[in-house]
Amino acid sequence: MSKGLPKRSEDYSLWYNELVKKAGLAENSAVRGCMVIKPYGFAIWEKMQRVLDDMFKRTGHENAYFPLFVPKSLFEAEEQNAEGFAKECAVVTHYRLQTDPDNKGKLRVDPAARLEEELIVRPTSEAIIWSTYKNWIQSYRDLPLLINQWANVVRWEMRTRLFLRTAEFLWQEGHTAHATADEAVAETKQMLDVYAEFAENYIALPVIRGVKTPNERFAGALDTYCIEGLMQDGKALQAGTSHFLGQNFAKAFDVKFATKEGSLDYVWGTSWGVSTRLMGALVMAHSDDEGLVLPPKLAPIQVVIVPIYKGEEQLAQISEKVNQLKKELEAKGISVKYDNRDTERPGFKFAEWELKGVPVRIAIGGRDLENGTAEVARRDTKTKSTQQFDELTSLIPALLDEIQDNIYQKALNYREEHTTKVDTYEEFKEVLENKGGFVLAHWDGTPETEERIKEETKATIRCIALNTPEEEGVDMLTGKPSKQRVYFAKAY
Amino acid sequence: MSKGLPKRSEDYSLWYNELVKKAGLAENSAVRGCMVIKPYGFAIWEKMQRVLDDMFKRTGHENAYFPLFVPKSLFEAEEQNAEGFAKECAVVTHYRLQTDPDNKGKLRVDPAARLEEELIVRPTSEAIIWSTYKNWIQSYRDLPLLINQWANVVRWEMRTRLFLRTAEFLWQEGHTAHATADEAVAETKQMLDVYAEFAENYIALPVIRGVKTPNERFAGALDTYCIEGLMQDGKALQAGTSHFLGQNFAKAFDVKFATKEGSLDYVWGTSWGVSTRLMGALVMAHSDDEGLVLPPKLAPIQVVIVPIYKGEEQLAQISEKVNQLKKELEAKGISVKYDNRDTERPGFKFAEWELKGVPVRIAIGGRDLENGTAEVARRDTKTKSTQQFDELTSLIPALLDEIQDNIYQKALNYREEHTTKVDTYEEFKEVLENKGGFVLAHWDGTPETEERIKEETKATIRCIALNTPEEEGVDMLTGKPSKQRVYFAKAY
Repeated sequence: MSKGLPKRSEDYSLWYNELVKKAGLAENSAVRGCMVIKPYGFAIWEKMQRVLDDMFKRTGHENAYFPLFVPKSLFEAEEQNAEGFAKECAVVTHYRLQTDPDNKGKLRVDPAARLEEELIVRPTSEAIIWSTYKNWIQSYRDLPLLINQWANVVRWEMRTRLFLRTAEFLWQEGHTAHATADEAVAETKQMLDVYAEFAENYIALPVIRGVKTPNERFAGALDTYCIEGLMQDGKALQAGTSHFLGQNFAKAFDVKFATKEGSLDYVWGTSWGVSTRLMGALVMAHSDDEGLVLPPKLAPIQVVIVPIYKGEEQLAQISEKVNQLKKELEAKGISVKYDNRDTERPGFKFAEWELKGVPVRIAIGGRDLENGTAEVARRDTKTKSTQQFDELTSLIPALLDEIQDNIYQKALNYREEHTTKVDTYEEFKEVLENKGGFVLAHWDGTPETEERIKEETKATIRCIALNTPEEEGVDMLTGKPSKQRVYFAKAY
Repeated sequence: MSKGLPKRSEDYSLWYNELVKKAGLAENSAVRGCMVIKPYGFAIWEKMQRVLDDMFKRTGHENAYFPLFVPKSLFEAEEQNAEGFAKECAVVTHYRLQTDPDNKGKLRVDPAARLEEELIVRPTSEAIIWSTYKNWIQSYRDLPLLINQWANVVRWEMRTRLFLRTAEFLWQEGHTAHATADEAVAETKQMLDVYAEFAENYIALPVIRGVKTPNERFAGALDTYCIEGLMQDGKALQAGTSHFLGQNFAKAFDVKFATKEGSLDYVWGTSWGVSTRLMGALVMAHSDDEGLVLPPKLAPIQVVIVPIYKGEEQLAQISEKVNQLKKELEAKGISVKYDNRDTERPGFKFAEWELKGVPVRIAIGGRDLENGTAEVARRDTKTKSTQQFDELTSLIPALLDEIQDNIYQKALNYREEHTTKVDTYEEFKEVLENKGGFVLAHWDGTPETEERIKEETKATIRCIALNTPEEEGVDMLTGKPSKQRVYFAKAY
């Protein structure tokens, strides 16, 4: 097959878009800014969901489902939040269509079916959920309330890109309520850790755990924690956020509880989410000019087996061995595809599975039958080796682990090579321009300086890392004192 | 705890609503007609999803995701379908809010942000999916295309009831494309069988498999197959539908394929869905005046264990034994809750778990410790027995199976007792009025007769059962000839 994929070095952005489409992950739809997630892409998202959902449940959360729509009066109750999302809200104003008298066979909105109050298609669910929590929380015995929802949300973005920024996207949003600020902060950080572990152990994406500056906070939060990864073009990608909401939403929706001591107090809230954006991170962190490189733990197909045969009889001999191997690997929880299509040649199949990022490819031909061998190819390193067929069942699981580790290590090396400490603004701009990646620099802590740097360089403060050591210094732009370096980068 | 649940015999409808709320399944939200699915309810839905999803995948289907919105021009392309849903469509007309100059702190729809083309919030996804399939299907090699989607949909219903009829609901919708009519019909029937097996083996709800009359067909389908269950108040409930779409959508969206023989032909389509309505069926089919009765296979908690103790020391002794038992049962895949709350008395716990429909309750007290016994209570029959504690690990799995069977058998007996053959219209009305249930009667096959019966009695033809033997007869109303009896009932 001809892949027709652009090279990353020539046009990273085009490479990404074409890869997402050609590998069968997603495509644009007839609705502006909304994507279709295709079966192969959705299979990866399902794996992500399953793993994350288990992690949420192990940390004591339950799933629930809240309405898609938010009445305008509820939406505007928490003013900061409302203001933050107002400019990108899809609004339902009518509830009926009627035959268009001027256009046979066509429909038009029925002007008589105007809603008394407009409904906002949720861009995030704090408003609808906190208006519900008001009825669920009376006493400290009702706390903590630990709930997650898997849902679609809509944010009317003007410039969209598959997975990274779409008008509709899929996500999970956790919404919790606590008796004390300390408990809520601990929850916020716990969920950040869950996200970081997922990113590193499953997506194989090393991430910086940090806290956002006030400028970059979630609208309505007191603190926004985040994980930030680095893509192969040197741009950062925010892969998940966890917000400490303080008592903002409790106050906006009047959610009070009777404390153990008998007084009434507002509850403390958190919210946290990751979305189908993670699919974009997965693609951009690891893939190459030949196609996807999927981390084995999230690959829908972990091993593909291609027979190379002459005639039906040889195919039957190969199939017998392969079916046995497939069964043994599946018993170990490995997903195996035996690609015995007779409509395509082996070369075409090799290219197709390479494009789709299957971690391990096994080929077996006539010579292998005689020798009791098989050819094993790794997607990540593109290396091939001849192995004893009988050893594959024990060899493959270890190989998948090795690939998972290698992909992670490669991304980590890239990030380390692309994290640069700078002390002057000249150096800062030079690194951003020519090398890219994270730039660790001192910052005076003011929104003005942050804003000016953004305007002049397009770089933003990705986060103040949680593990950064204190270090006396001065802001590279203003010369004002600073106590620690922060992570700057151009970002998705 | 005081359940405050009305009796079924007094007000079935109120009993249902109160039970859904008090058992923690769902509640009404701040959005007209939309519900909040609470954690306990959602846990049941998740179990349903997991089982159904596995069944879909075993029959060769893959999941994908299509946009929430349908542009009006696509929506109206298949005219019958559009007409069928036009009266209940939520319509997005604007994409931005702005500060309301007349109302400090409030927002209003930005009149400048009017969409050029209105977007319909999907009431079902044939239009958006078939407009996509046009690009996915070129040749017979692309067929069959077997796709399912889990999603939320919106139908602006005027009279809503939790789970049974809500403006927004969750469902799955399968959409498949085939090279021949025969294949598409076979798919339609296969998925009907999947639904029937799920209803009978998991929800423990016996169902009639049948085909709808033209009056009751899905808008845009050539044939609608359905499964129909009977609730405890003698009303029928349509629990799932599977549609043979013929070439209607292929023609509306110009989806053609190159046949093996080299000609161009329109593809043949099916669609099929079940929704959170199944939750309503589950509740209404089995529950009683004390609360939910959950079939073990779908119960989030299958066994609850309540300690009855005096003092910390005795609790510790009980807990040691219980924790061991819990571990052993969980190793067999059984979900167990040890309710050792010290804030509630055993009587309260018994009532709460009864309300929540947990199939098996084990109580263990001081006397049991001495005797090596435990009290085992069944939710379905409300019978209790004393069992040897050491035998529980082997006894409980069998007991859960027995409960599953018993619930099904009870529902089947109810249905058989409430399926009545009648030959006169007098008798028909009398049965509907006093006994309820399914009424098997001859029908002349005309929409006019069907319509008249519906107007006069509120009963509809639920389906023409697939397994009904041919039987010569005459329509009870018109006296015209009929070849088989059909199922009439009042329905949800």
